[in-house]
Amino acid sequence: MPMWNRYLEQHQPRFLAELLDFLRIPSISAISANAGDVQRAAEWVAARVTAAGMEHVQILPTGGHPVVYADWLHAPGTPTVMIYGHFDVQPVDPLNLWTTPPFEPDIRDDKVFARGASDDKGNMLVPILAVEAMLKTAGVLPVNLKFFFEGQEEIGSPQLGEFIPKQTQLLACDMVLSSDGGQWSESEPLILVGLRGGCGVQIDVRAARADLHSGMYGGVVQNPIHALAAIIASMHGPDGTVTVDGFYDEVVPLTAQDRARIAKVPYDESAEVEALDVPTLFGEAGYTPRERAWARPTLEVNGIWGGFQSEGIKTVLPSEAHAKITCRLVADQTPSRIVDLLQTHVASHTPPGVTAAVAPLAFRAFPYLVPEDEPGNAAVRAVLVELYGQEPYNVRSGGSIPVCSLFQRHLGAYTASFAFGLDDEDIHSPNEFFRLASFRKGQAAYCTLLERLGT
Amino acid sequence: MPMWNRYLEQHQPRFLAELLDFLRIPSISAISANAGDVQRAAEWVAARVTAAGMEHVQILPTGGHPVVYADWLHAPGTPTVMIYGHFDVQPVDPLNLWTTPPFEPDIRDDKVFARGASDDKGNMLVPILAVEAMLKTAGVLPVNLKFFFEGQEEIGSPQLGEFIPKQTQLLACDMVLSSDGGQWSESEPLILVGLRGGCGVQIDVRAARADLHSGMYGGVVQNPIHALAAIIASMHGPDGTVTVDGFYDEVVPLTAQDRARIAKVPYDESAEVEALDVPTLFGEAGYTPRERAWARPTLEVNGIWGGFQSEGIKTVLPSEAHAKITCRLVADQTPSRIVDLLQTHVASHTPPGVTAAVAPLAFRAFPYLVPEDEPGNAAVRAVLVELYGQEPYNVRSGGSIPVCSLFQRHLGAYTASFAFGLDDEDIHSPNEFFRLASFRKGQAAYCTLLERLGT
Repeated sequence: MPMWNRYLEQHQPRFLAELLDFLRIPSISAISANAGDVQRAAEWVAARVTAAGMEHVQILPTGGHPVVYADWLHAPGTPTVMIYGHFDVQPVDPLNLWTTPPFEPDIRDDKVFARGASDDKGNMLVPILAVEAMLKTAGVLPVNLKFFFEGQEEIGSPQLGEFIPKQTQLLACDMVLSSDGGQWSESEPLILVGLRGGCGVQIDVRAARADLHSGMYGGVVQNPIHALAAIIASMHGPDGTVTVDGFYDEVVPLTAQDRARIAKVPYDESAEVEALDVPTLFGEAGYTPRERAWARPTLEVNGIWGGFQSEGIKTVLPSEAHAKITCRLVADQTPSRIVDLLQTHVASHTPPGVTAAVAPLAFRAFPYLVPEDEPGNAAVRAVLVELYGQEPYNVRSGGSIPVCSLFQRHLGAYTASFAFGLDDEDIHSPNEFFRLASFRKGQAAYCTLLERLGT
Repeated sequence: MPMWNRYLEQHQPRFLAELLDFLRIPSISAISANAGDVQRAAEWVAARVTAAGMEHVQILPTGGHPVVYADWLHAPGTPTVMIYGHFDVQPVDPLNLWTTPPFEPDIRDDKVFARGASDDKGNMLVPILAVEAMLKTAGVLPVNLKFFFEGQEEIGSPQLGEFIPKQTQLLACDMVLSSDGGQWSESEPLILVGLRGGCGVQIDVRAARADLHSGMYGGVVQNPIHALAAIIASMHGPDGTVTVDGFYDEVVPLTAQDRARIAKVPYDESAEVEALDVPTLFGEAGYTPRERAWARPTLEVNGIWGGFQSEGIKTVLPSEAHAKITCRLVADQTPSRIVDLLQTHVASHTPPGVTAAVAPLAFRAFPYLVPEDEPGNAAVRAVLVELYGQEPYNVRSGGSIPVCSLFQRHLGAYTASFAFGLDDEDIHSPNEFFRLASFRKGQAAYCTLLERLGT
């Protein structure tokens, strides 16, 4: 048994206590009032990687939430591996649906419940602990290692598009391992071979200078909620196809091989319907649910609001209505062009009597596909086969990790996902949790992977 | 000069202080947390009409917010006049747009700014003060008088539809004067000859059991905001015509005479556009703005909400979306039938993948038209001609006062509006105000009107 294994076993109680400390920091990147908490999380991470034995630990300003960098570069002749993760978390609303408060981590049934438990604090602490175990026992690492942990993933990494191209020397590496992701199930592994990109806009519709009495003015002025509903309704066809002019122009059609690969990954539609408790799945005709989630672009309204939203009745004809929209993009769509198309669409679909402004949201990610022979993924595949006793599924994710395409475009390094979240862990939702078994398993798995990459 | 006139002049400072006291009570009928304040306002009114010299003062339970009743019935051979008003007020949001807090009345430029200043506390205190002046000077009133003040007008008087038919003996009268309304301008009077009716529903659209990640599930399940937008968009044609099947079936078409009467009332469309700061007025083709506001039915979404509504980005595919809708109705539409049509419409326009529930809101008012020769309005007309030196305009209101149709249907009494609010006083909006000149003028005008009704 390697020495690091024993170290990991001995220190689990402390590691768990540290995870709970990390989860107590409400590092919500989307809410400006929490900016100090995101900074605090960066400081916590910097101290933790220092304690693990990493060198050149820095909290780097980005113009937004900071990045934590550290390295250990004493393994000449081996590849330089950069490990990625993020210490910011999603907002917590609706708060009333949480069983225990989102920033008071609670352990039930060998799971820790807290915002960020799975996405990504639990998963990103794993490689830090693995590295500590190796440095505190062997005194060396099997590869040259860099840590790159960011604090703005949940808002689409808005500053990293400028930051990464300026730091290509510091961040130079042969491959990236991402701790932001997961496995297929408790017993089945996966390899991530693609991500959707994304972009977003906010639509602000305005009518009269102030809220009006719906009796006095109903029928006289346009209602901005009606106008916004008409704009939103104009963006999809009856089957969910996006009807924004030009939206699909840059989409590379799925090949028969693409479809065959996607079809190989198990999918139980009726189990999905039951788990989600929806009347039926829904989406673009001619594609399977998996194809729609992984390889077709979408346009989703993430939020809408306007007028009176409280208990009871207020007979108001409101002066404003608003919506936030994000799109998921696939190769070869470009985020900025899609934002332009949305602006053009809204301009040409705004009913009379109101104005509609479309402002880009700070979310820009290129779609991202990994070649089959990429060496990081090859090593990950081998370790997963050892760990789970079966070949991993080749999956894409419908989500976006903007830094993956940035690393690829600016550092020439592909990112292999190596993380242990599972699909049912309610990330981005109330009662997010992380399995403590995954937390423990991941630490040893990271040690094994680094050893394999060093040989 | 009549004795009451001198009394009114002498007591104005006290009357103003009393008005401010009344305005400090946050008697918002729509918010259940304020139910105690509505009760407190009822107690304030009961004490105030007692002090004015009224008899048989009662706070009557309705099952919801209470009613205040009082009478003075010592003028045999004269008509029995019931004066109506309401002591509840609208909610105050958006609070940040108020210059001074809504329940801390502030006097600027001979206007009092507070929620309820014009609608209806300022206006309903006026006849109480007039009655006090007559009782404290002459010791008698020129007519038999009843006061009927309610605490649920702003939520559509949901309990009065049951309460009034059960209290027909107590409330028996020859005519009703309503203190809830206004005049055409500071120098021009009006007579109210019609009101729109109303009803409302809330639509609740639900998809998955919890909020989902828009990357993982976008394209796989229906988005309830998209579904709600489609439902709302299906309710109007491009010009604002309501496209709910059967909506216009019971509408009595406007006659040439109706249209001519409406056209007699001055209307400056470009001044309206400028005052409202809208790009253009908007509504059903083939009708003037006045016809649309006064004599055509409408369907307005008063509020919409769903998903993420805060600063920044949350890439969520929400589990729910909601809207509140109220309609304004004209003769001979029936509120309950319109609610049925809305339920049928939503059921047949709900896209796949979601469920949509439609619950009636507690707002039911029949449309209401006053005959030209109604004696209350005739007396009001004569007093207004004296007071303003010109004939009043015959106007309708696009709003609804549910009790007017209840008084007519159950007591056989028409309601003549006699009140002194003006259109620019931002009722239902931030910075509602009431002119103190109107407050003073109204007191003498009520004395004059009661004298005329008694001769």
